[in-house]
Amino acid sequence: MSINHYDDETFFDAYAKMQRSQYGLSCAGEWYLLENMLPEIKDKQILDLGCGYGWHSQYFVDCGANKVIAIDCSKKMIETAKMKHTHPKIEYHICNLEEYNYPTNTFDMVFSNLVLHYVEDLTAVYRKVYQTLKPNGEFIFNIEHPVFTAGINQDWIYNAQGDIEYWAIDMYYYSNKRNTQFLGCDIQKYHHTLTQIINELIVCGFVIETIQEVCPNEEMLKQPDMIHEMRRPMMLLVKARKR
Amino acid sequence: MSINHYDDETFFDAYAKMQRSQYGLSCAGEWYLLENMLPEIKDKQILDLGCGYGWHSQYFVDCGANKVIAIDCSKKMIETAKMKHTHPKIEYHICNLEEYNYPTNTFDMVFSNLVLHYVEDLTAVYRKVYQTLKPNGEFIFNIEHPVFTAGINQDWIYNAQGDIEYWAIDMYYYSNKRNTQFLGCDIQKYHHTLTQIINELIVCGFVIETIQEVCPNEEMLKQPDMIHEMRRPMMLLVKARKR
Repeated sequence: MSINHYDDETFFDAYAKMQRSQYGLSCAGEWYLLENMLPEIKDKQILDLGCGYGWHSQYFVDCGANKVIAIDCSKKMIETAKMKHTHPKIEYHICNLEEYNYPTNTFDMVFSNLVLHYVEDLTAVYRKVYQTLKPNGEFIFNIEHPVFTAGINQDWIYNAQGDIEYWAIDMYYYSNKRNTQFLGCDIQKYHHTLTQIINELIVCGFVIETIQEVCPNEEMLKQPDMIHEMRRPMMLLVKARKR
Repeated sequence: MSINHYDDETFFDAYAKMQRSQYGLSCAGEWYLLENMLPEIKDKQILDLGCGYGWHSQYFVDCGANKVIAIDCSKKMIETAKMKHTHPKIEYHICNLEEYNYPTNTFDMVFSNLVLHYVEDLTAVYRKVYQTLKPNGEFIFNIEHPVFTAGINQDWIYNAQGDIEYWAIDMYYYSNKRNTQFLGCDIQKYHHTLTQIINELIVCGFVIETIQEVCPNEEMLKQPDMIHEMRRPMMLLVKARKR
């Protein structure tokens, strides 16, 4: 079962204040890499797993997608998406990504941004995505990096002066629920090893086309404190093709 | 240029005392996973990059390999290999793995165990391996995991009582030389990100067939202190096929 914090009012309000929530894709640190990984979008059928505010779904229809099915388990997220990014070619559904029916052989691309680390059984989702893709269809996702999810409290270790000392991990090979603080709330995520994230895709029949860890580009490094993002990986982008 | 500590007498003597040096593959924690990744060996032409004492080369000829070319940059290692694992089908050469001539379209498998983290330019080696493999040939290697090479001093962080507290990493996205202590000697290795280790293979034309992080099995976990090996990944096994 996946975890949904996004219907919690405090969390949802804090999320609304994030740069990426207010200003969209251009304010998401991963977007400059993720956009480059996308295949031709024109006339394609796309499934957006965990669509949030619908920024990506909107982008896909702007690029000429024929149809986007966008699901999110959070009622509040879907309500916001319907207000902010309504479009005749986007169909929004309140639905847990483990419970969606995944019609066979239907989509040219399945996309998922920063959601799969809330999923306990990653392999089960991989199998469903495989089934719902057309042959040669692409599965493109951004998941929190195992180094990040295995991070102690998913926070830096600070020295006595309150400065960042380093990033510490523990219990790496125990794939399980981890507690952390995010936007001032207690949050749970699922830590998966790299083997589980990548090798299980191969076992399911996918061909790995790109693996890209997200680091800031030159422009982003001009922002205060962004240099720390060079010190440990936070996100992992994967592009896999159905054989 | 890759790094060679193995001709240093102090280091070489300490290495000789390691379980894996004395008793071979069965005492190497990765072997139970690595052996499972090997293709059919019988009648194959194999290149062993960084052969060390020659344990793997010996295993390959025992499995019916037609020919094994085994190279190592350490004169002392090759001398030991020639004493311990001499065989008419194994040809040992003292040679840096960046300087080897890599004959085109020659080998069915290129194998490399715990050597590539001494190599600065991983992609250059990948290209040479690709060229020297026959079509559908396999490249199977074990490299120190990026979490390990990015580890601070490549050692645990200990608390005031001297107990292991956690594993800390830093400067992850800076792919460069790292200093550590190994077997009582000052050692340098090259840290490479996961993106460099995996994605560069894909860029070179390889298909990723298996990615497997090494964790201890049930039997190994009975050994004292082995439980700590569950806390951070040390080795990464990769199997890639030439397209």
